[in-house]
Amino acid sequence: MTGRIDSDRLWADLMALGAITEPDRPYTRRSFSPLFDAGRAWLTERMREAGIATHIDPAGNLIGRRDGRYPARPAIVVGSHSDSVPAGGRFDGMAGVVAGIAIARALGEHDIELDHPLEVIDFLAEEPNEFGLSCIGSRGITGCLTAEQLTLKNPKSETLAQAVALVGGDPAKLPATPRRDIGAAFELHIEQGPVLEREGIDIGVVTAIVGITRLEIEFQGRAGHAGTTPMQGRRDPLIAAARLVGWVQQTALELAAGGRGHFVATVGIIEALPGGSNVIPRSARIVIDARSEDRGLMEEFRALLDTESLAAARAARVERSRLACLSDNQPAACDAHLQTVLSRSAKALDLSSKSMASGAGHDMAFISQVAPAAMVFIPCKDGRSHTPEEWASAQALAAGTEVLLGAILDVDPAFVRK
Amino acid sequence: MTGRIDSDRLWADLMALGAITEPDRPYTRRSFSPLFDAGRAWLTERMREAGIATHIDPAGNLIGRRDGRYPARPAIVVGSHSDSVPAGGRFDGMAGVVAGIAIARALGEHDIELDHPLEVIDFLAEEPNEFGLSCIGSRGITGCLTAEQLTLKNPKSETLAQAVALVGGDPAKLPATPRRDIGAAFELHIEQGPVLEREGIDIGVVTAIVGITRLEIEFQGRAGHAGTTPMQGRRDPLIAAARLVGWVQQTALELAAGGRGHFVATVGIIEALPGGSNVIPRSARIVIDARSEDRGLMEEFRALLDTESLAAARAARVERSRLACLSDNQPAACDAHLQTVLSRSAKALDLSSKSMASGAGHDMAFISQVAPAAMVFIPCKDGRSHTPEEWASAQALAAGTEVLLGAILDVDPAFVRK
Repeated sequence: MTGRIDSDRLWADLMALGAITEPDRPYTRRSFSPLFDAGRAWLTERMREAGIATHIDPAGNLIGRRDGRYPARPAIVVGSHSDSVPAGGRFDGMAGVVAGIAIARALGEHDIELDHPLEVIDFLAEEPNEFGLSCIGSRGITGCLTAEQLTLKNPKSETLAQAVALVGGDPAKLPATPRRDIGAAFELHIEQGPVLEREGIDIGVVTAIVGITRLEIEFQGRAGHAGTTPMQGRRDPLIAAARLVGWVQQTALELAAGGRGHFVATVGIIEALPGGSNVIPRSARIVIDARSEDRGLMEEFRALLDTESLAAARAARVERSRLACLSDNQPAACDAHLQTVLSRSAKALDLSSKSMASGAGHDMAFISQVAPAAMVFIPCKDGRSHTPEEWASAQALAAGTEVLLGAILDVDPAFVRK
Repeated sequence: MTGRIDSDRLWADLMALGAITEPDRPYTRRSFSPLFDAGRAWLTERMREAGIATHIDPAGNLIGRRDGRYPARPAIVVGSHSDSVPAGGRFDGMAGVVAGIAIARALGEHDIELDHPLEVIDFLAEEPNEFGLSCIGSRGITGCLTAEQLTLKNPKSETLAQAVALVGGDPAKLPATPRRDIGAAFELHIEQGPVLEREGIDIGVVTAIVGITRLEIEFQGRAGHAGTTPMQGRRDPLIAAARLVGWVQQTALELAAGGRGHFVATVGIIEALPGGSNVIPRSARIVIDARSEDRGLMEEFRALLDTESLAAARAARVERSRLACLSDNQPAACDAHLQTVLSRSAKALDLSSKSMASGAGHDMAFISQVAPAAMVFIPCKDGRSHTPEEWASAQALAAGTEVLLGAILDVDPAFVRK
């Protein structure tokens, strides 16, 4: 593959952005922090060098805009986010932002004028942050950031509205009418999973961003002395919870194998109370994180879980005292045409690709509500993410960026070489 | 049943002792606290009223001694402990101490002279305390309190030796030769379990005090993103831990039903790390509390657990990174002859009785190492203990005390009515 992207420059940009980190806790550049501002100042310089004008929109997104032949036409957006989780990596989010800049730079260096305006966007605060709300920038431009959410406070009692204003946004204009002037949106991201690397595939074309449902189940039994309470007649709620942990995995395996798309379910939190070695627990609690690209599959899982948790409670002679939905997001389908365009672009570059769902949330899940949106995944080492060991190769990053560039040239109907 | 015990006085004593409690946290009278000293001052008065001379032995036990016809003969001991757990009850321990005083009082009021000296003992610090060591007094007089244990420190950096001295003990004489002058020892205690109440039986004659073995098992797997890691290929250590929770209960049920005596096993502690809802755990840990009156049964359980935990690890494709024994006590058999004497005493009083193991630890487990020891259990409400709701009836307390008195008169070979 030889293309238009300067892959050395792209890689150097990514490493330079990664170096803007809390020195004692690499790689950390959390949204709304001074380091986040420093990262954005650096990105703004790179955008200007690439010949694109920058501004901050009302939602606090950093936008570099390159005019097209027809300024009134809807924009082609390419972007991701530059904020990180604490002690995270240098790729999640940042790769998609520097890829957008590399695309703008390549268009300039190759004197390519698009019909449509191109916007390179660094979406504000995609990761969890001190306001307890992620995807703030992409919510903001799609009409999904509510007035109530703007009153959320951080530990210093600043409101989200104040924080958005401090990064240069204009929260008074939010929640306003969502943007309707986006014609297509693209995001490059590391897969954050092991599939592409394991299968030796260059490019993942994302079919959908999963809906995430978090469910909490609690069983109440009868506490007792671990020595003096005979086994017969115990009402131990941990027995029911433990049975459910195994069931969740088995059922998720079956649903995932059923051919109806990505499905995963995980028990990451389990708790038995009072939690003494010599006390039969009085209650046990698990939290289930279930994700599906198919809403019907999720509803099926929830119905099965309801039945099974009641059966587990009966078998252990305890009460299922709580089955609560902590959060519930719908899956977001990527645009079918843009998926085709991305696959075609990969093929033209002699890159292997496969369709796959995104098991993680992304800004494109919000953007897809107002515009055709699509994503490419690139392989990452051991599928790891949100850790300093997060890694993708320079070659994989350049390949994914070339695919995006090819797709942009494909969808822009009348691009001309000057 | 009509007997020699003044049951109203006995009950009044127990309630009066219970009233010596932290007012905001009934019922709390922890060892080494000023309230503990107040409780002992009150007990000392009752012992003196009952005509017995009191002293504190080197291990800090409060002893009321009533001379017998032959002062050189070994003593008959009856006692328990007056300290409580935080927010505990008014029966666990205290019932056995006031029963001992009631027996001394009855002997006096009925002009009964024993051949043997009688010692009513309030053993020091049977419950867990701020030095992290239980049964301090019974360890002390049986040669089981080591010089190293006497250097244990509480949060105020006082040593256990200093604390024992402050209650009137003489730790310089410890660890000395264990007492060899005890001919027989008895303890009355609430069952702390549901069996006697459920079966409508008046008296439990304890066959053995179980050995307690605490085992910790940890599985290490591979952390991962709960959304992007496909179900196939996961290495989730919580799956292995959850399987083991169910196995422990099932296996304990089977071993308990096998006719080889009391066996229980409990998982009271379970932990998955890092413990985030959206992260597949990297490790999972459980703590198992297993108790058996038969050492062979315990060893069988440990061998089965070893095999099963390795199988669970293999099935989940994780590593069993730890199988550690946190503590391991041998079971302590009660003296066969004294058990017969207790059953005979109950029968003579028209009380129903059954043989049963103690699933909880008691001072008699230590005393049994130096003398024939035995215990009677009385029914307690709902089997509850270590809670302010702990309860036994005045009638049950009097019945158990009569059984002890009868047994003492039985074993004292030549008691005479003056």
